[in-house]
Amino acid sequence: MRLNGNFSRLKNSYLFTEVGRRTAAYSSAHPERRIIRLSVGDVTLPLVPAVIHAMRQAVDELSRAETFRGYAPEHGYDFLLDAVRSDYVRKGISLFRDEIFVSDGAKSDCGNLSALFSADSTVLLPDPVYPAYLDVNLMAGRKVLYSRGTEENGFLPAPERGVHADIIYLCSPNNPTGAAYSKEQLGEWVDYAIGQGAVILFDAAYESFVRDEGVARSIYEVEGARTCAIEICSFSKTAGFTGVRCGYTVIPRELEREGVSLNRMWARRQSATYNGTSYVSQRGAEAALSEEGRRQISLSAERYRANAAAIMRCLGGLGVPYTGGRNSPYIWMKCPHGLDSWTFFGELLEQANVVGTPGVGFGEGGEGYFRLSSFGTEADTLEACERLSAYYNGKVR
Amino acid sequence: MRLNGNFSRLKNSYLFTEVGRRTAAYSSAHPERRIIRLSVGDVTLPLVPAVIHAMRQAVDELSRAETFRGYAPEHGYDFLLDAVRSDYVRKGISLFRDEIFVSDGAKSDCGNLSALFSADSTVLLPDPVYPAYLDVNLMAGRKVLYSRGTEENGFLPAPERGVHADIIYLCSPNNPTGAAYSKEQLGEWVDYAIGQGAVILFDAAYESFVRDEGVARSIYEVEGARTCAIEICSFSKTAGFTGVRCGYTVIPRELEREGVSLNRMWARRQSATYNGTSYVSQRGAEAALSEEGRRQISLSAERYRANAAAIMRCLGGLGVPYTGGRNSPYIWMKCPHGLDSWTFFGELLEQANVVGTPGVGFGEGGEGYFRLSSFGTEADTLEACERLSAYYNGKVR
Repeated sequence: MRLNGNFSRLKNSYLFTEVGRRTAAYSSAHPERRIIRLSVGDVTLPLVPAVIHAMRQAVDELSRAETFRGYAPEHGYDFLLDAVRSDYVRKGISLFRDEIFVSDGAKSDCGNLSALFSADSTVLLPDPVYPAYLDVNLMAGRKVLYSRGTEENGFLPAPERGVHADIIYLCSPNNPTGAAYSKEQLGEWVDYAIGQGAVILFDAAYESFVRDEGVARSIYEVEGARTCAIEICSFSKTAGFTGVRCGYTVIPRELEREGVSLNRMWARRQSATYNGTSYVSQRGAEAALSEEGRRQISLSAERYRANAAAIMRCLGGLGVPYTGGRNSPYIWMKCPHGLDSWTFFGELLEQANVVGTPGVGFGEGGEGYFRLSSFGTEADTLEACERLSAYYNGKVR
Repeated sequence: MRLNGNFSRLKNSYLFTEVGRRTAAYSSAHPERRIIRLSVGDVTLPLVPAVIHAMRQAVDELSRAETFRGYAPEHGYDFLLDAVRSDYVRKGISLFRDEIFVSDGAKSDCGNLSALFSADSTVLLPDPVYPAYLDVNLMAGRKVLYSRGTEENGFLPAPERGVHADIIYLCSPNNPTGAAYSKEQLGEWVDYAIGQGAVILFDAAYESFVRDEGVARSIYEVEGARTCAIEICSFSKTAGFTGVRCGYTVIPRELEREGVSLNRMWARRQSATYNGTSYVSQRGAEAALSEEGRRQISLSAERYRANAAAIMRCLGGLGVPYTGGRNSPYIWMKCPHGLDSWTFFGELLEQANVVGTPGVGFGEGGEGYFRLSSFGTEADTLEACERLSAYYNGKVR
């Protein structure tokens, strides 16, 4: 009997588990303090009426024999695949239906796509970035290289000549830095991947926050991407589906390596180890992409944007350097007085009762930085800003 | 760039995908024929009122800011973990809350648990058995041995001295044969696993169909199982959740190998690559385990049992040898005239317009056998029985 020894390469606990653990410990020691969490990127606004209506209807269908549905098609219902295709058409991108794979969420896909590649592949990760990419590749026993985001490159690292990688993760708008690649910058990555025969896993979970011209919302806006890139998408941040669970992954037909279609490999993997996404969630997702749904969701997005703007104003007023917030729900700030991320986390938790996410949890390149999320309620966000200001002005209890 | 070459060990398409493909091809060539599907183990009865009520309420909660919920705890909400614990107590088994991991379904867990073990582990599979176990281990590059179910051992293979395995899959009541291990028989497997230092993955998806005294509903009824067995459970067949998606896996605290807790490994794997199960599904699952839910579900189960009884009567009357049907929704019949499984599949599809599942799709040991499911509607099941009789009596068109 041998266990997967690669688990010993992992940190003891996952970043957000650790943030939760430390917050809970403080909270139970100080039950009178009201803690404001701007940490995990969880949404707080309710589902929009169009989505609720569709989900109610789906539940009702499951209550009657004539309309009951059992196992969903493993790769998603046609109604949702077609809604996703139409959504891409609005971005000027045309997809075949069998290039889209519906799942229970982007995080599952980020993890499970790892099965397509050999254990001796080399992985290139941005640093800092969403920690799940690293964990899954450590568990798979892969060699991991980093592409460092810094203040100098605006936390948007470019490919480096001489570095060889087989699998490249990109996340734009980036979690945690909020920095977003332009179409031209993504083009450099696509050229690099094609030159190396590498595959890009492009995490587009935050694409709906893009509002600047020229910033890419899909890697398929870049010529050549269909031959080298997989795109992973989410309804969590767009439609508030963090608890509903639905996402999808796009694998173009042209994406082949060693004469093998990655689209067909993934179809095979999913048919053997996945049994479809909840019907209720799929109907909700379809409604989120409808005209009415998109209109309603844009109002929620406005409110998160207003939160981001409040945090940016606050940090700007305090003279704290930051990135993000504009094409992203995240604001990535520099810790004060040269504090490391976890020390600042502790100070802010204890002195301001505000929880954010320590930058170093997203990679060594995040040391000395801190992530704030705009997904809180308006009232909490404004109060967190006041508490932050008080902390910076030395006026905390 | 190297892809996972182990995918070349897989058959081109997953069993049920192939059954669907051949059925669709026949159907489109003969659109006037009404085909009855007793193939995939999908349920047909609607969700029971208690479950519907809970799911509606959950959707309503997501529509209001005060009751909205985002990310679920990665391992499941306490309300569901506690409901599962109570369900085990009814079987006389006591579990800790942190031994239970809620997921989107047993199939996902069957696949993803593979990540806990090294690629050079040896896997022992029953043959015939649910094909997903084989596929996931082929993809992982593992050596696979088989433990053959035969008419002689009642399709309940016992451990063989001299055979070494690291990971042992058991499915009882078995899919596809419907045969179910007694507590004593399972005890032999537990002793064997402990002797070898192996881990048993026990698929209990069909435990709710057990009605005979002495047949095990959980491997934890057997002494010692907490030190060697993982149990995978499903709401799909019990509560009709094939399209709702919810299941759970139990990993006891005592289960350690090489000084490492498999419970902690799985907690770590799930926190890095899974983001919780749909809130609506979890509330539905909780209701399925409530007193009212269980009472209502037992009425559905009665109807499937009546279908199984009808198929058993039909085969009995025709003198066709079979197993299952009593503690299982599946009936495992011998193909007539020494036909192989796919030939019989084709004959039955073309001559009786009845679809079943070719036994060989569950392993070489299934060649010459055929699986019928009792999950159809009553009317379809009775008509399928008539058509089967006509086929056997040479009276088909």
